[in-house]
Amino acid sequence: MRFFSDNAAAVSPAVLEAMLAANQVDTAYDGDALSQTLDGVFSDLFGTECAALWVSTGTAANCLALAAMVPPHGGVFCHAEAHINSDEAGAPEFFTHGAKLMPLAGVGAKLSPETVAAARRAIRADVHRVQPHALSITNATEYGLVYTPDEVAALSAVCRDHGLGLHMDGARFANAIATLGCHPGDVTWRAGVDALSFGFVKNGGLSAEALVFFRTDLAEVAKIRRKRAGHLNSKGRYQAAQILALLEDDRWLVNARAANGAAATIAAAAAGRLLYPVEANELFLRLTADEAATLRAGGFDFYDWGEGEARLVTSWDQPTAEIDALASAIRALP
Amino acid sequence: MRFFSDNAAAVSPAVLEAMLAANQVDTAYDGDALSQTLDGVFSDLFGTECAALWVSTGTAANCLALAAMVPPHGGVFCHAEAHINSDEAGAPEFFTHGAKLMPLAGVGAKLSPETVAAARRAIRADVHRVQPHALSITNATEYGLVYTPDEVAALSAVCRDHGLGLHMDGARFANAIATLGCHPGDVTWRAGVDALSFGFVKNGGLSAEALVFFRTDLAEVAKIRRKRAGHLNSKGRYQAAQILALLEDDRWLVNARAANGAAATIAAAAAGRLLYPVEANELFLRLTADEAATLRAGGFDFYDWGEGEARLVTSWDQPTAEIDALASAIRALP
Amino acid sequence: MRFFSDNAAAVSPAVLEAMLAANQVDTAYDGDALSQTLDGVFSDLFGTECAALWVSTGTAANCLALAAMVPPHGGVFCHAEAHINSDEAGAPEFFTHGAKLMPLAGVGAKLSPETVAAARRAIRADVHRVQPHALSITNATEYGLVYTPDEVAALSAVCRDHGLGLHMDGARFANAIATLGCHPGDVTWRAGVDALSFGFVKNGGLSAEALVFFRTDLAEVAKIRRKRAGHLNSKGRYQAAQILALLEDDRWLVNARAANGAAATIAAAAAGRLLYPVEANELFLRLTADEAATLRAGGFDFYDWGEGEARLVTSWDQPTAEIDALASAIRALP
Amino acid sequence: MRFFSDNAAAVSPAVLEAMLAANQVDTAYDGDALSQTLDGVFSDLFGTECAALWVSTGTAANCLALAAMVPPHGGVFCHAEAHINSDEAGAPEFFTHGAKLMPLAGVGAKLSPETVAAARRAIRADVHRVQPHALSITNATEYGLVYTPDEVAALSAVCRDHGLGLHMDGARFANAIATLGCHPGDVTWRAGVDALSFGFVKNGGLSAEALVFFRTDLAEVAKIRRKRAGHLNSKGRYQAAQILALLEDDRWLVNARAANGAAATIAAAAAGRLLYPVEANELFLRLTADEAATLRAGGFDFYDWGEGEARLVTSWDQPTAEIDALASAIRALP
Repeated sequence: MRFFSDNAAAVSPAVLEAMLAANQVDTAYDGDALSQTLDGVFSDLFGTECAALWVSTGTAANCLALAAMVPPHGGVFCHAEAHINSDEAGAPEFFTHGAKLMPLAGVGAKLSPETVAAARRAIRADVHRVQPHALSITNATEYGLVYTPDEVAALSAVCRDHGLGLHMDGARFANAIATLGCHPGDVTWRAGVDALSFGFVKNGGLSAEALVFFRTDLAEVAKIRRKRAGHLNSKGRYQAAQILALLEDDRWLVNARAANGAAATIAAAAAGRLLYPVEANELFLRLTADEAATLRAGGFDFYDWGEGEARLVTSWDQPTAEIDALASAIRALP
Repeated sequence: MRFFSDNAAAVSPAVLEAMLAANQVDTAYDGDALSQTLDGVFSDLFGTECAALWVSTGTAANCLALAAMVPPHGGVFCHAEAHINSDEAGAPEFFTHGAKLMPLAGVGAKLSPETVAAARRAIRADVHRVQPHALSITNATEYGLVYTPDEVAALSAVCRDHGLGLHMDGARFANAIATLGCHPGDVTWRAGVDALSFGFVKNGGLSAEALVFFRTDLAEVAKIRRKRAGHLNSKGRYQAAQILALLEDDRWLVNARAANGAAATIAAAAAGRLLYPVEANELFLRLTADEAATLRAGGFDFYDWGEGEARLVTSWDQPTAEIDALASAIRALP
Repeated sequence: MRFFSDNAAAVSPAVLEAMLAANQVDTAYDGDALSQTLDGVFSDLFGTECAALWVSTGTAANCLALAAMVPPHGGVFCHAEAHINSDEAGAPEFFTHGAKLMPLAGVGAKLSPETVAAARRAIRADVHRVQPHALSITNATEYGLVYTPDEVAALSAVCRDHGLGLHMDGARFANAIATLGCHPGDVTWRAGVDALSFGFVKNGGLSAEALVFFRTDLAEVAKIRRKRAGHLNSKGRYQAAQILALLEDDRWLVNARAANGAAATIAAAAAGRLLYPVEANELFLRLTADEAATLRAGGFDFYDWGEGEARLVTSWDQPTAEIDALASAIRALP
Repeated sequence: MRFFSDNAAAVSPAVLEAMLAANQVDTAYDGDALSQTLDGVFSDLFGTECAALWVSTGTAANCLALAAMVPPHGGVFCHAEAHINSDEAGAPEFFTHGAKLMPLAGVGAKLSPETVAAARRAIRADVHRVQPHALSITNATEYGLVYTPDEVAALSAVCRDHGLGLHMDGARFANAIATLGCHPGDVTWRAGVDALSFGFVKNGGLSAEALVFFRTDLAEVAKIRRKRAGHLNSKGRYQAAQILALLEDDRWLVNARAANGAAATIAAAAAGRLLYPVEANELFLRLTADEAATLRAGGFDFYDWGEGEARLVTSWDQPTAEIDALASAIRALP
């Protein structure tokens, strides 16, 4: 029973069916009929004009977004534990040609407007200091917290004051929306987000994420850079098909609700152990080495997260029996 | 009836079935069971120890290979019309951090050892001139010509003399082997090739190419750079599955023979019009604008290739009826 | 007697005196009184508003100019034998983060508008091809030819048609102006040049070149990149002092006329041997190995330039006796 | 009376004389007689084989050193307030093609072996995390503290354990040696330093710093990259002359002792206000806004350093009268 990563989950049958349905001759790259619908589909979903590109990984989505907003000599504010800073092998520096990630602090990988504003003010405006050009936030965060529309709007107000672009890493955007219950536009463009990495792979997809630009003027260069980074798949229709299948019938929300629900069930069982509120599909627990060993002996797989702590992640396709078994096992810990 | 690109072809059913079969929980990235077999499978195929990485595009494979052999301040010899020089949007410069492609001449995008040696000798060995560190050749070439094992060996001898790595862009490697009828090791590592971009997407794959290192010491950094370029798919098993399916039962060769056979049929019909010998699955024909229009009116789609010339590409899944129809239509041109 | 490079020449006494005169406490970097005058001084010289930066090498000037006009994914048209393409160790690729130099042909390293326009037209406007963003020309060229104002204007018309920036590498700009006899604005901004690398080091300077932007909007980022490239000297006043000394009393023109005059004297003696017209301070001669040996035995130092050819360069401080001696020696060749 | 930066100081007369003496025809770039002596001169000074390159700024020296030790996908441990992290406009990221600076904490910009070792251990050794390849320390630090030979040796032991190169930013290396009173080899190669940026510009030089490699194998590529970064001055003899003049008769030490002595005099007067021990030529004082205003009204110029603090820097050429005046003025503060 696997709770170490939603990356390990299977692919939604609907996605595979859509790929099979796409299996016919069509124009290469993103010239095919499916890829050509993406701008419209996302514009409808968000309620504003969007430009949307498929890419094969969240890292590529994040980094193409940042490269569209930040020159090589610029900087990017982000949380110190943001995925872009900690887990992408320097990909943001690669795609931006050496822009500087400027790590900030905040509980649960969440940033406050005060933190960002103070960090900006602390940087002298001269040629010796790298000047920030963007802020990147993750929603839901790397610790499973969710930014509300108001919180994003407050951050974007700081961005506007200082000429910063605003990027949202939405590897678990669906989980955030499932929790917020708001329109997806509310926590993105209406709150001032310029570009969103809209994750599908953790949520039932196979190899397709969407990079959605609300500032559509940024998309043209991003398309060039996608090709230049080797990310313009020659059979793009199989990429588009995945995304379209998950958007259809709100599958992205259905799946996210399932994962979030599983996390809520476990959270209820682990209430006294939670390091952070559980607002999406990740749980961080206080767990001694002995307790962790007990759970693992019971067949549950998860990551240690430093001394006496553990990370558990639920997935869209987690069987109820597994979830309940884990909840019971946690309750049964001495 | 589409003859403009083998990129537009459908995906082999065997590939899709393998992807479906892989659709279960497994370790993320390339830690899954399928990905872990690739080194062994390619080592068996080539008859020597290999390190093999899946990537989603040929551009990524080529550029990761070059970046493993060429420092940012180095150069890469290649044909002026090599895909890396003409059609990859500067991706080699991106992945290598600015190495210089040094375009050379040769009929049909094919290079001779004399050309490479002369170009090397013409570069003074001082800090003012970019020094070449690798040679990249394409087999089959962008004009559908095939390098024989002896030809590759003669080029690699020049490379050894001058300390150059040797990369083979094998976007149509299967087509080359189908024509050569040799062991795949003969035209690669036995002939001195250090790294091969082994193409599958044009030959029935969906989104997986293999980057095969015969100098296995180059693979470790390439794996880091794959992640850094956003090319480490989180569900790697679906990448590995594609490649394994095409290697199984020699499907890669079966498919390539089909495409080559289609090209041969058309070549026989177009003998007087051929700009280059047809040694793989591409045909370059003299074709007036009127003749091109006639063919298009007959339902045949292909690229113009400059004034009075056209490129036609056959695919692994081209229906015989379409091939014969095109051959007849060409014969029937006035 | 040295005719191999004007880089080997001594520094003008006026330059050294100006540096001595600057030797007092002042603000660091380019905040000093002298550096602060540069914009104004160059604006006066060129008759239009300029932004001028000192840098320590022509390579830095050229590459900062290109980086201001060309994104990492863009291209730069230049002559195949342009200094930026042949002799700067890949510095343009470094400063631009991998933009592609697109070498063009032309006699004497000179480009025609037809050549540039044809090259532009040959590049499909899609994401697979690197799109050119600038043209760089060298005046006087690497073979000592001079572009006239009309010739530059014709090139800039092509640039305007295709959205290309226009950079002039003026390592020997003074020599060009000395020959043209025109106002320096005529062959630069009035003819459509956006940025000029105005060389002083070959013409009596020590370590200061000027990067002059006629599109002053490009200067702000160039100043950031100058720092980022380690080219913002902390004692900038000694850089500015050099440039100001050479501009004062038209020393830059006096010096260039001296070098050009020396070249003309030798050219007259070598009339039958000239590979190119001598329009500045470089001479390219047909010279057999025996003839070269004879001249060297007479104490004259110069570069061989391929088989049976030689390059000779005159300098601002070349003693008349040396010039006459060389002219006689050439005349005396059998 | 200027105490805001040793960058603002004048150039040593001995340096200017040496430049005048170098003012004759010689080979360009670093082929001249003076440049060719540098390896030997530094080898003698340090008592081991060195390779030494002149460059025009400390930023260039630091960044060429780092680029020689750290691949684009690697990381560099340094103090959060290290000059390379805070004041070089992202130059390290530029020269290394995007390597990641990994800021660490420590009082007075000084790092402990425990801090470095703990930071190394915290980084999982997988492809998702940037792996550090070097440690850079500044001696004297940005807060005027000095690393002893034992302290450097303890850091280098950590570096050896983890395969990290060790770079020393010696913008004020002379000041450190003047304080330590040790042989310059003791705190560098004998303590495990691989490359040293040996500063001269703050200490009486004009535009020349030395990049000294104790691992001489790193120098060859650094020379290529120096050219590629536009830092290979064409008249290199004037660069070498500056360095040689300051090494002659121990002028570098004489100058540093003067600056350090000035700082000691002021420190004695400001004993109760010191934020850090004064071990070189920088002082950080508690100083209210009123007190700062009083000093400035007295003609003393210096930087505010955050709220209620100030930075004062002494120079090699600071007149005794100015030093004494400042000491008195500080003593006289209410």
